[in-house]
Amino acid sequence: MAPAQPNPYQRASERFALASKLQAAGMILNWDAQTMMPRGGAFARGEEMAALSEVGAELIGSDAAADELAEAEAMAPALEAPERADLSEMRRKLAHARAAPKSLFAAKARLSQNLQAAWAQARADDDFATFARGFGQLLPVVRDLAQAKAEALGLTPYGALMDEYDPGVGEVMVEAMFADLAAWLPPLIEDIRERQSRWAATIPLPAVPAGAQRALSFRLAEVVGHQVDHFRIDPAPHPFSVPYGPGDVRFTTRYDPNPRFAISATLHEAGHAMYEFNLPRELAFRPAGLARGMSVHESQSLSVERLIGRSREFLSFLSHLMAELFGPDPAWSHANLVKTWRRLDEGFIRVEADEVTYPLHIILRFRLERALLSGDLAVSDIPGAWSDSFQSLLGRVPPDDRAGSLQDIHWAAGLFGYFPNYAVGSVLGAQFFEAARRDDPGIISALAQGDLGPYFAWVRPKVHVRASLVDFATLVQEATGAPLSTAAFKAHLMARYMEEEAP
Amino acid sequence: MAPAQPNPYQRASERFALASKLQAAGMILNWDAQTMMPRGGAFARGEEMAALSEVGAELIGSDAAADELAEAEAMAPALEAPERADLSEMRRKLAHARAAPKSLFAAKARLSQNLQAAWAQARADDDFATFARGFGQLLPVVRDLAQAKAEALGLTPYGALMDEYDPGVGEVMVEAMFADLAAWLPPLIEDIRERQSRWAATIPLPAVPAGAQRALSFRLAEVVGHQVDHFRIDPAPHPFSVPYGPGDVRFTTRYDPNPRFAISATLHEAGHAMYEFNLPRELAFRPAGLARGMSVHESQSLSVERLIGRSREFLSFLSHLMAELFGPDPAWSHANLVKTWRRLDEGFIRVEADEVTYPLHIILRFRLERALLSGDLAVSDIPGAWSDSFQSLLGRVPPDDRAGSLQDIHWAAGLFGYFPNYAVGSVLGAQFFEAARRDDPGIISALAQGDLGPYFAWVRPKVHVRASLVDFATLVQEATGAPLSTAAFKAHLMARYMEEEAP
Repeated sequence: MAPAQPNPYQRASERFALASKLQAAGMILNWDAQTMMPRGGAFARGEEMAALSEVGAELIGSDAAADELAEAEAMAPALEAPERADLSEMRRKLAHARAAPKSLFAAKARLSQNLQAAWAQARADDDFATFARGFGQLLPVVRDLAQAKAEALGLTPYGALMDEYDPGVGEVMVEAMFADLAAWLPPLIEDIRERQSRWAATIPLPAVPAGAQRALSFRLAEVVGHQVDHFRIDPAPHPFSVPYGPGDVRFTTRYDPNPRFAISATLHEAGHAMYEFNLPRELAFRPAGLARGMSVHESQSLSVERLIGRSREFLSFLSHLMAELFGPDPAWSHANLVKTWRRLDEGFIRVEADEVTYPLHIILRFRLERALLSGDLAVSDIPGAWSDSFQSLLGRVPPDDRAGSLQDIHWAAGLFGYFPNYAVGSVLGAQFFEAARRDDPGIISALAQGDLGPYFAWVRPKVHVRASLVDFATLVQEATGAPLSTAAFKAHLMARYMEEEAP
Repeated sequence: MAPAQPNPYQRASERFALASKLQAAGMILNWDAQTMMPRGGAFARGEEMAALSEVGAELIGSDAAADELAEAEAMAPALEAPERADLSEMRRKLAHARAAPKSLFAAKARLSQNLQAAWAQARADDDFATFARGFGQLLPVVRDLAQAKAEALGLTPYGALMDEYDPGVGEVMVEAMFADLAAWLPPLIEDIRERQSRWAATIPLPAVPAGAQRALSFRLAEVVGHQVDHFRIDPAPHPFSVPYGPGDVRFTTRYDPNPRFAISATLHEAGHAMYEFNLPRELAFRPAGLARGMSVHESQSLSVERLIGRSREFLSFLSHLMAELFGPDPAWSHANLVKTWRRLDEGFIRVEADEVTYPLHIILRFRLERALLSGDLAVSDIPGAWSDSFQSLLGRVPPDDRAGSLQDIHWAAGLFGYFPNYAVGSVLGAQFFEAARRDDPGIISALAQGDLGPYFAWVRPKVHVRASLVDFATLVQEATGAPLSTAAFKAHLMARYMEEEAP
């Protein structure tokens, strides 16, 4: 039995858990909007999401919340470590919630909800102008929010937005990491292209009916470790996976005729979802029980999608699985799958990019969104700036806005300061994976049997169950024995793209 | 532009609209739990629903809400009729929300959420004991809530529960109406059975694949008047339709091998959904803009399902549609469809019952739940009491609990005082429909072409757009020229079952 009179820590913790539950409800509504909702529901959904956002912000941003938390913090010396971690997460969330008037949060929720529907149509029609109209209303709201949070948190405006998704990473670290990557990635890409130019042609993967791809996606989710009573996969224009509360794991994918996209997207989202699934159930909905941040999240999805999913060993397993489910075809021979997933892409789409060029797609977005936020870049100038940046980083220019700035939902959803985690996650994932292989070399050989058990046996205690019980730097240091650096990522790319035997 | 300083009425109205939006969010979560959610999500969903319920109750049940509403009511003389209707709905909702401590509402939400999952399994397994364990925990909470509401509202405990779903109907009126129905329905049923005993055998409808039934269901939804961008239909164990906000209409059905069930359920839920769809958009989420109550709601679903859907005229249209979508078969000849839907059923399932015996199924539940609430009936005695009542009202005994007390989700969902609206809706629907035919005899002839336009042209202004702008008695009087009575229902049954030419 809980005591009849909860102490100040318990009261504050309950309040924040309530807000977490409302946030989980909002995530279901967002999932529903992108998978199930009739289009005509967009207006009502915007109102509902705004209401959840308004009530949630009030719950953890009110004077009563601040008083309650201050009382709880006075108890800190008497509390255990998990409770103290809870307090520090509550303090951060409270600071974000109290940084701006609630009308600003509600405006962002409403505008971004409407813009997401408009974006889907604009992308289908390659109609930047329509997107720009809504985005032109949303951007000033995001800017005001960034400014207010910067003042409240003592961070830069961009850093203040990052802090909400990815505490402990920081704009300064990202800027340095991205400068480092932008220096050595382009020459490495040249070297890899030169090496691959001597390869025989890849057999293109033939079209596979959506039903068979769906069967493969479900099988891959189970291979990753998901349990039939605990997950679902649905088609959506942009693949995503968000937490809905313990035990309810959902991710989306897209069934293009070529099965390559669905395979990558399924492994990616299944990786995210394993992190959520492994979070400590006894801390469900409590701030310290939530995932550590989006860079750690992305390290988990990218480890499954790329480090594991594109290893020679796993591709051998996948080759057999594709033959079993799709029927025999030389296109899914082991050698051809390796070649398919090694060959650097020539395209323009982030979510289809190979792991070598991928960070450059992120660096482009990082540069543009900082310029949009500071006012150095106008909304109408996005297409031109996108083309220029793509040319300078990747040496080519997208043919249209669909292959340019309309490809991602993030800006429509008001997600600024969010993109960096995709590249930080690449780097961090490589560092985790290097440490895992060092601790248990058997992780790699098991992949040839489609057995991810040894990998999860390492990552679950080192990363997943630690939730937000420690900060980002401590998590990385304790799991890998070193602070975050690009060394493991660089070593991984060299080994896989310059040293691995040609397929 | 809204004024910078909202007046007291506007403040109160905004607060209640916010609560409505949270309630709509909760309905999406409930729909999701019954159609989409992986089973493993039940724990988290219970937490999320309880959180929404707790926050919603606080929003309209707090001292601040009471003060705000009192200030708003002081403005009443200066307000227009729709605003005054809003105030009176707010007062009722506030009284319900403040009747009991919020912990009691949260406990009900949590227990009933868990019990709904247990109920689905218990029904599948015909396992009353498992259901009874959870129900035994929920019932005392419902009882406490009823007692608290009775004191707060000056009503009987059962009447106080009814008032939440169906204001203005009342336990006294229902008791009198049900005594009347229980007096003349059984002898009428005898007469009809005697008449039907001389009919040639009905050709049983053959099994139809779920895909073809799904196509028919979508077509029927469009025939009723739904628009492709605004609705969806999904399979669920118990068909339902709940409001998710304007423009987002969802209903569920079930594809048994025999298409009869899906046809009836689709027409029924499509009728509910048209009422929601036609509510005045400018009052969206405001108390006066919501549906008048569940009896009026049920009158709308039953009018479409039965008064229209089982008319000789509509069945002629349906006969052609089934031949078009299912291929030709003597089972869907016009005469056989009429016979199929005229023949009184011999079964035990409420949602499959014919329109003549249907009210007796409700009267049984009304009697049992009043006895459960007062403590005169123990949970463990439900199966026996069910059998006794079924025998006395319908002359037979269900073979198991699946065909008895486990057939409905309502008690598992904590819905007490809710069942009466199904029978009141039958009676009210007949009264509305009689008035509609009197005003426009063309309504009937149009049905042979599958044209429901003339019917909705009558019911939309008389019922749908009136929302909660007038009370129940006024709505009925103004639409039909008379207070509610069983006369039109009795006349309808006599005409269709005793006077209509035998098929």
